[in-house]
Amino acid sequence: MIPPPHKAEIEIPEMSDLSPLPVKPSVATIASQSESAPLSLDLSHHLSIESRIRQKSLLKVASSYVARDPELLSLAAGLPSPALFPIEKVSATVQVAKHESVRNGLWKCDGLLPDTRRELHKEKDSSLNGQSEYDLSGALQYEQGTGAKQLLTFLKKHTEIVHKPQYRDWDCIMSGGNTHAMETVFRMLINPGDYVLMEEYVFPETAEGLRPIRAKMIGIEMDDEGLRSDSLRQLLEEWDETARGGTRPAVLYVVPTGQNPTGSTMSLRRRKDIYNICVTYDLIIIEDDPYYFLQMSEYVPGADPTVVKVPKTNQEFVSSLVPSMLSLDTQGRVLRLDSFSKVAAPGMRCGWITGSERFVERVLRHNEVGLQFPSGLSMAVLHGMLVEGWGQDGYLDWLVNLRAEYTNRRNALLNAMDKYLPREVCNWVVPSAGMFVWINVDYTKHPRRDNGVEAVEMEIFEAGIENKVLILPGAWFKVNMEARNVFFRATFASVSAQDMALAIERFGEVLRKGFGLYD
Amino acid sequence: MIPPPHKAEIEIPEMSDLSPLPVKPSVATIASQSESAPLSLDLSHHLSIESRIRQKSLLKVASSYVARDPELLSLAAGLPSPALFPIEKVSATVQVAKHESVRNGLWKCDGLLPDTRRELHKEKDSSLNGQSEYDLSGALQYEQGTGAKQLLTFLKKHTEIVHKPQYRDWDCIMSGGNTHAMETVFRMLINPGDYVLMEEYVFPETAEGLRPIRAKMIGIEMDDEGLRSDSLRQLLEEWDETARGGTRPAVLYVVPTGQNPTGSTMSLRRRKDIYNICVTYDLIIIEDDPYYFLQMSEYVPGADPTVVKVPKTNQEFVSSLVPSMLSLDTQGRVLRLDSFSKVAAPGMRCGWITGSERFVERVLRHNEVGLQFPSGLSMAVLHGMLVEGWGQDGYLDWLVNLRAEYTNRRNALLNAMDKYLPREVCNWVVPSAGMFVWINVDYTKHPRRDNGVEAVEMEIFEAGIENKVLILPGAWFKVNMEARNVFFRATFASVSAQDMALAIERFGEVLRKGFGLYD
Repeated sequence: MIPPPHKAEIEIPEMSDLSPLPVKPSVATIASQSESAPLSLDLSHHLSIESRIRQKSLLKVASSYVARDPELLSLAAGLPSPALFPIEKVSATVQVAKHESVRNGLWKCDGLLPDTRRELHKEKDSSLNGQSEYDLSGALQYEQGTGAKQLLTFLKKHTEIVHKPQYRDWDCIMSGGNTHAMETVFRMLINPGDYVLMEEYVFPETAEGLRPIRAKMIGIEMDDEGLRSDSLRQLLEEWDETARGGTRPAVLYVVPTGQNPTGSTMSLRRRKDIYNICVTYDLIIIEDDPYYFLQMSEYVPGADPTVVKVPKTNQEFVSSLVPSMLSLDTQGRVLRLDSFSKVAAPGMRCGWITGSERFVERVLRHNEVGLQFPSGLSMAVLHGMLVEGWGQDGYLDWLVNLRAEYTNRRNALLNAMDKYLPREVCNWVVPSAGMFVWINVDYTKHPRRDNGVEAVEMEIFEAGIENKVLILPGAWFKVNMEARNVFFRATFASVSAQDMALAIERFGEVLRKGFGLYD
Repeated sequence: MIPPPHKAEIEIPEMSDLSPLPVKPSVATIASQSESAPLSLDLSHHLSIESRIRQKSLLKVASSYVARDPELLSLAAGLPSPALFPIEKVSATVQVAKHESVRNGLWKCDGLLPDTRRELHKEKDSSLNGQSEYDLSGALQYEQGTGAKQLLTFLKKHTEIVHKPQYRDWDCIMSGGNTHAMETVFRMLINPGDYVLMEEYVFPETAEGLRPIRAKMIGIEMDDEGLRSDSLRQLLEEWDETARGGTRPAVLYVVPTGQNPTGSTMSLRRRKDIYNICVTYDLIIIEDDPYYFLQMSEYVPGADPTVVKVPKTNQEFVSSLVPSMLSLDTQGRVLRLDSFSKVAAPGMRCGWITGSERFVERVLRHNEVGLQFPSGLSMAVLHGMLVEGWGQDGYLDWLVNLRAEYTNRRNALLNAMDKYLPREVCNWVVPSAGMFVWINVDYTKHPRRDNGVEAVEMEIFEAGIENKVLILPGAWFKVNMEARNVFFRATFASVSAQDMALAIERFGEVLRKGFGLYD
């Protein structure tokens, strides 16, 4: 009656023991994946124990029987009946970007996007009569762990247009947004106790997500262009396993564009240097890039912030973007994380991961026993908007509009900073992407500098709250404990120009008072 | 220039070192949480290392400053601007259940739910003018890790109405559906190498999710009422750490209602026995209960399957449901997983977890660095349907309708089984809940029984495919390797009565031929 003891330890397979690889691409092979491009390297030795153990779901095997024989009557899959889904129809009204023909190279921001609208509708059975390739019955039903292929095909084509991957066997899989994607790829690549490299200042949730899986984090020094390649190289070159108590790091996590919190964007030169170092030392690069399309035109101090230069064609737009790490990757060592949170809406909880088929297949195995797939309602609305509505060009039009609006907001914040902040004790780099400005405050000029960097920073932070302005201190973003200077992160994403100006004026007062400056 | 080595191992805090507990309930305390009910036990010694390490997100601290001082101007939160979300409006048409006043105790199934419809609309700023407590700007924006409180409040009230928890400090938090919830609570309670108990036959994704986190699974023998309490007690009583190579299991995973794959439902007596054993041996119970509301009325062989008995009032309906493990729990040792997949639609990717505040707070810390929250579009449509549309009573009406429709489907399958399957070699228990019938085939009567249980099962399975019917073999669901008999799982969830009859007729032919039976 008592079951026998379960087989002892679960065996940890070598990657080569896993289900046949490379897997088939999840969506149709697209044009650029020509036979002439090289295949990725087999980098499966980077997979964590957890990831290696994952197996293909038995229930997916069941569906393969049905796919092979359309006459087969299946009592196998416990799918609820679509007739019993209570939702009959979903509609959405979406904005439409100004058509490129109206662009004259300048964008006048009026705080609103153009008032053209488009209606989209999803009904239960519209795929049956050919009205839609992806209907509501499909969106409400269980979906493959890849996400809906009708949307994924669009995203893969978009990725190809923008990033032009240089190896043949790349693929995309949908995620629940970049926070979910981060947890997924961290668990795929990191065993407890492994070292992981990243920028010295990071979004707190990155560190908060890595700590529970017991990754040892090392922040690499940054400059105006983000993570310093010379520091990265030196760290890896001089790595001492004994002193560090662990093997050389095999994972680099970076936010190369509009980094949060520093607002820095890596130049192409910097990206190439970092990529080459990762080739030399065999690192996997996690490219977390939600702000990629929020790359902005030049800031002209004092100019009207509401007039923004825009590219005249989508081709010009795509060419103007600094190449991603993915686009430099010839070996399949970049895992790129894209999200709809900053280019559509965070509530979609939908994004996608791009990498080699080998790695994408491992994400799929994880999705099947976790997220499963992004919300079908999110995918249905995105499909209606992107695939049935805008198309690839219309989506790029939207992105051009969007970045112009964020450029306007950035310019308004920078104008306020030029006007109200005391240059004697602080400076900043104009961010060329993202949502943040990083204010560098010279603590050596502070009367209480002897209390140390962190004490000065905290004093300014608290004086800010006293003076009714909340700007986050650098300490909240620091990976290692020793700060070299005082920093503050200000965002221009969601506050009106008027409130930004008032907030910055208050912060200027705080700095003047704290540093004993008087006009 | 080189950063100093990161602090060695991350310290693993005792639960008492964590942020102050018990945390505040995420939603308003509801009536039943009276001062008279006892508090839960502190069972935090069950938390995994991973879960103990989790900390409150710094960015949540930032938002608390804003909450305290409405005059504070914040440049802190990097939230995108709702004005720049491309979706202006979302509408849905939802079914409405027959009002209870039309119930006469019998339900005539016509394959369609009643054709009453309701329109719901979510626009960007309708909360500002008081039209909605949860508008589209909110649904599309970043949300707390609890999920939208406007929907969560409804779910907590629903949980209170149906399950009437017996301790004071219980709470709910939203999940991405039960597959996601399973991954979350597994990681919260299980360290690699820990033993976990469950039914001897489980949904494959349960085992596929547990293997990568290196849980050692033990399946407990089942009978017609599911997991046997005597087997459970004996296993725990006789646990030998040395022989087993590990401490006594501290987690029991069960699907008490309409279990997948066996279709079994635990009686109240069985549930009480199991709960008491878990109290004695200090186990946490994961109650995965997606089929709870698909409890069905009696099956009368030969009767018209389309006429189904239904309760005349919602009170009668709720009283007719077998009590959940949650409702028996006086100590906070049950983590209950509810999902919209079977009662609304799987594509929502939305569910909720109920347990003690202590445990719910740990789920929240995980959500913040993973799922974040369910799709805002899913939550908006559910909110419009449940909160602004149906209300608590209307939702129960819907569930009464839904279970009548599934009862009809079950009856149709059972009719076909009565007609076509050879009782000489197989039998089954009429399932009182869920979506599955478990067919027990007596392999000792099979001509090739000497090949063993698994060989006979596989032979029948393959002969089925040959004869154009796919019914899944017991082996696919078995936790341990030794099977005592041949089983097949048939579902009545999504196939028409006609196709079910044809499939079962084909399976009957397979059995007759395989066992050498001739009419």
